[in-house]
Amino acid sequence: MRKLIRVNLAEGTVRMEDLTPEYSALGGRALTSTIVAREVPPLCHPLGADNKLVVAAGLLAGTTCANSGRLSVGGKSPLTGGIKESNVGGNVAMKMGKLGIAGVVLEGQAPEGKLFYLLITKDGAQLLPADEYKGLKNYDLASKLQDKYGKKVGIVSIGPAGEMKFSAASVAVTSTNGTPSRHAGRGGMGAVMGSKGFKAIVVDDKGAPGVSYHDKEAFKEAAGVFRDALREHPVTKPGGGLAVYGTNVLTSIINEAGAFPTRNFTEGQFEGAQNISGETMHDVIKERGGNPTHSGCSTCIIQCSNEYVDKDKNYVTSALEYETIWANGANCGIDDLDAIAQIDRLCDDYGLDTIEIGCAVAVAMQAGVKAFGDGAGAIELIHEIGKGTPLGRILGSGTAVTGQAYGVSNVPVVKRQSLPAYDPRAVKGMGVTYATTTMGADHTAGYAVATNILKVGGFVDPLKPEGQVDLSKNLQIATAAVDAAGLCVFVAFAVLDIASGLEAIPKMLNAQYGWALTLDDVIEYGKQILKTEREFNKAAGFTALDDRLPEFFHKEPLTPHNVVFDVADEELDTVHDF
Amino acid sequence: MRKLIRVNLAEGTVRMEDLTPEYSALGGRALTSTIVAREVPPLCHPLGADNKLVVAAGLLAGTTCANSGRLSVGGKSPLTGGIKESNVGGNVAMKMGKLGIAGVVLEGQAPEGKLFYLLITKDGAQLLPADEYKGLKNYDLASKLQDKYGKKVGIVSIGPAGEMKFSAASVAVTSTNGTPSRHAGRGGMGAVMGSKGFKAIVVDDKGAPGVSYHDKEAFKEAAGVFRDALREHPVTKPGGGLAVYGTNVLTSIINEAGAFPTRNFTEGQFEGAQNISGETMHDVIKERGGNPTHSGCSTCIIQCSNEYVDKDKNYVTSALEYETIWANGANCGIDDLDAIAQIDRLCDDYGLDTIEIGCAVAVAMQAGVKAFGDGAGAIELIHEIGKGTPLGRILGSGTAVTGQAYGVSNVPVVKRQSLPAYDPRAVKGMGVTYATTTMGADHTAGYAVATNILKVGGFVDPLKPEGQVDLSKNLQIATAAVDAAGLCVFVAFAVLDIASGLEAIPKMLNAQYGWALTLDDVIEYGKQILKTEREFNKAAGFTALDDRLPEFFHKEPLTPHNVVFDVADEELDTVHDF
Repeated sequence: MRKLIRVNLAEGTVRMEDLTPEYSALGGRALTSTIVAREVPPLCHPLGADNKLVVAAGLLAGTTCANSGRLSVGGKSPLTGGIKESNVGGNVAMKMGKLGIAGVVLEGQAPEGKLFYLLITKDGAQLLPADEYKGLKNYDLASKLQDKYGKKVGIVSIGPAGEMKFSAASVAVTSTNGTPSRHAGRGGMGAVMGSKGFKAIVVDDKGAPGVSYHDKEAFKEAAGVFRDALREHPVTKPGGGLAVYGTNVLTSIINEAGAFPTRNFTEGQFEGAQNISGETMHDVIKERGGNPTHSGCSTCIIQCSNEYVDKDKNYVTSALEYETIWANGANCGIDDLDAIAQIDRLCDDYGLDTIEIGCAVAVAMQAGVKAFGDGAGAIELIHEIGKGTPLGRILGSGTAVTGQAYGVSNVPVVKRQSLPAYDPRAVKGMGVTYATTTMGADHTAGYAVATNILKVGGFVDPLKPEGQVDLSKNLQIATAAVDAAGLCVFVAFAVLDIASGLEAIPKMLNAQYGWALTLDDVIEYGKQILKTEREFNKAAGFTALDDRLPEFFHKEPLTPHNVVFDVADEELDTVHDF
Repeated sequence: MRKLIRVNLAEGTVRMEDLTPEYSALGGRALTSTIVAREVPPLCHPLGADNKLVVAAGLLAGTTCANSGRLSVGGKSPLTGGIKESNVGGNVAMKMGKLGIAGVVLEGQAPEGKLFYLLITKDGAQLLPADEYKGLKNYDLASKLQDKYGKKVGIVSIGPAGEMKFSAASVAVTSTNGTPSRHAGRGGMGAVMGSKGFKAIVVDDKGAPGVSYHDKEAFKEAAGVFRDALREHPVTKPGGGLAVYGTNVLTSIINEAGAFPTRNFTEGQFEGAQNISGETMHDVIKERGGNPTHSGCSTCIIQCSNEYVDKDKNYVTSALEYETIWANGANCGIDDLDAIAQIDRLCDDYGLDTIEIGCAVAVAMQAGVKAFGDGAGAIELIHEIGKGTPLGRILGSGTAVTGQAYGVSNVPVVKRQSLPAYDPRAVKGMGVTYATTTMGADHTAGYAVATNILKVGGFVDPLKPEGQVDLSKNLQIATAAVDAAGLCVFVAFAVLDIASGLEAIPKMLNAQYGWALTLDDVIEYGKQILKTEREFNKAAGFTALDDRLPEFFHKEPLTPHNVVFDVADEELDTVHDF
């Protein structure tokens, strides 16, 4: 029986309990969202004592299944006011799986000024004072905790941004290389952790019993079929686009498609795209002796990660990714990869969502705080956030607040969360996902780029409104299930095209847990997650009118295609009819 | 036929048109809210080209009716995201009435960087460049415009806060003494005016034709009865509480009632109340040779205004009022009347809502930005806003943004607008109004203090939930009608108790316009306004869940009565059943 660790910060207690029947079939996003929906009052203040922060491993965590190392971090979001599952890789979920830990629930709030961390080992869990770590950045913190508990422990932590309760604060997770460079970035989950007076979870899986399988042989067989699918598909295979260029393979593709939001979503192509493209990045990293192809997450065989080094060959950051490069690059008019890498490192260190921050900086640039293209200026702004200056607090509160503070009217947010790296006018399926997901604008919630641009799982013309709602709806349902399993969202590329890979997923779950799920059941499982999340949001005050893109996407045509977002509101309202 | 002046800033055009049939029976809040509801897309950005700013005189403006000089300023609010009518006195509404101008509608946006003002005379209206007035504070601006157009003109204007599009920016209106000291403070209407590239309206009523009456004798008679009611009622009569102590008569009363929110709503009584009370203020002003009893608004006979002077007998500000004294006094732990007067003057000069700003400063104080009680520190903060520094932008964006930027969880707002000067836990009728009015937390929308505390119109125990919903509902309906007539909300004190005074209101309207309204029709008229506003808000995304007080009012008992807000949600949801 998997366990749940409940930490009450107000009482200073730790309780290890068997998953109760209502939660026993849940993992990852299904577990975080269901706990939040059942246990958190929808109208509570996200930074108050009644909110909870849930950190959950996926159902397949700890197994030999490829790419099963994702971790879900959930709670009521201080950024959106709605439910939030923020998804992250790294080395923690696998360790939790091996220890039989389904999740950690942080409850209540520590007395003012107190800070704690949790140590999880095979012998149990202990709440310990973290006063000595107060104010530490993630890299320093990880290094101190690794000195104390060994290089191989997994760490979930917040930096100064989380301690300051910024709405753009992330939760960091250590990568396979030990750096705190994987982030549950979206929705301010770091602020929720900070509001509880909680700094970190250290997971030491030394001597862990490992996952017990209902049918080990059947699992092995299904996991093999699944692995083969990933190794076969052109996007995910070794030597494929993701492995060679990382997620940044997308810069050239999305720029070419005219959907690369430039200078705060005012243009669809960036004249400096080549300087920050995956191809250029690959060459730069290789030339400098860094590592362009790297597994950042336990059990990953896609290897979209990288280790970026500076001109002197010193490590700067790991997994310089497409969304980060876009948000702090093209979206700010910056075409300097070294500056962007520096921003990524700083965001990881302070504990900030690179997407939210890049969008906030771009809005500030539009207001004249810095000039578009000013990489050094953008780096200064990130330091302002880390120091908690008033300007930093504006930016750290996210894009919507930055727009309000500077009186900007084209503010790219849905449910107060900033848009990711695909202009919804030119990738309309993505626009449907941004508008309708329970999460606020989020690309991972239903990655329509796959079918709109990459022609995976068929093709739906990105520039036309037709077919986008069904595309997004089906992807959102499937993704919820993938997030519950703890699988990387990129496995979707393979399983959308390779039926045996898709079928292997319920087979693995059945072999592990002794269940009898069909593919239809998995879809039903995904639907149930979305329904649960949607009900929470409704009870928190959201309506269909929150499932809309900002006005300017409907009114201001995007170059070069001169398109606006024109999926009808009535159609958007059918996304959740299932 | 009354006229509407439509100014299109994008085209630089001014159109004077007869009120169309759909608007012809409307004035004040009825006119602003109906125009906004019919002409502004509910999901538009409040600072974008599609929002409109409507400035409307009441139905009785320009007549000899006592206290008929109120002006309504409406639009979609950048603070709440909903519909807004912000109500203000001064000398403009009467002049508009005499000129036959029902309202001015500002549409579109001037080209980037351009600024205009509108001159209204008996000969028509002209749009003129205001570039020379860019960045001017309200007092300097008024003085320059009076130099140019004469001391007696009325002026509607914004200061630097409005130009910077701050969500707490007010619209200033000149008082009868010519100072820009009357403010449509709530909801950021100044930011909407600023977003249009518009600085001021100058109204010169020299040679105005005056109001034409359908039956002048009947009007005179009804106006006499109405005046007698105001002169007779203990609250509004000459020598009554409002005349002698101004609205600040309330400090002692509300503090005594244990409903005087202190240090960001953490206590219900302020140990320094006596130092800032109406009684003290009256003595200070008198001793220094200022004017404790003054008519700030045309046709006012209640005289709740005053002219506050400093130790050297120099004019500081006019109408140092209860809400301002509370927000920037007790709520910030400040008991220094001179510091508060200085803050009031600065807010008037920069163009800021003193309630929103006082609450934002108190939240910042709770976060440690300044200490509670630090008057000099609070003054510094107001200057930060006026200068548009990052800290000023946080505060100028209002209480909700300040709470978010500083990670504070007890943030006293409803629909993102800050609460006024009555703790809803100890004046529960007021809590119902805050929660359910279309305006966001607003005391003037249904002033239950009258019956809860002052025992006007009966008595409903302020500490019990029973009866509060009906009280607030009836007051909200009546107030909407009063706001449409352009009457001061304080006339309610008299007409709630004196039937002949109440009956005089439809009689005056009938005599002026040739209508045949009954009292029931007036109530119906009020209901219609609320329905119109509510429909707009619904279309802008508001639900019943927005009609709630923040969590902490339900959870944290207020001293000295140790009460929480306990009017049931289901009851709140019946306020708009009519």
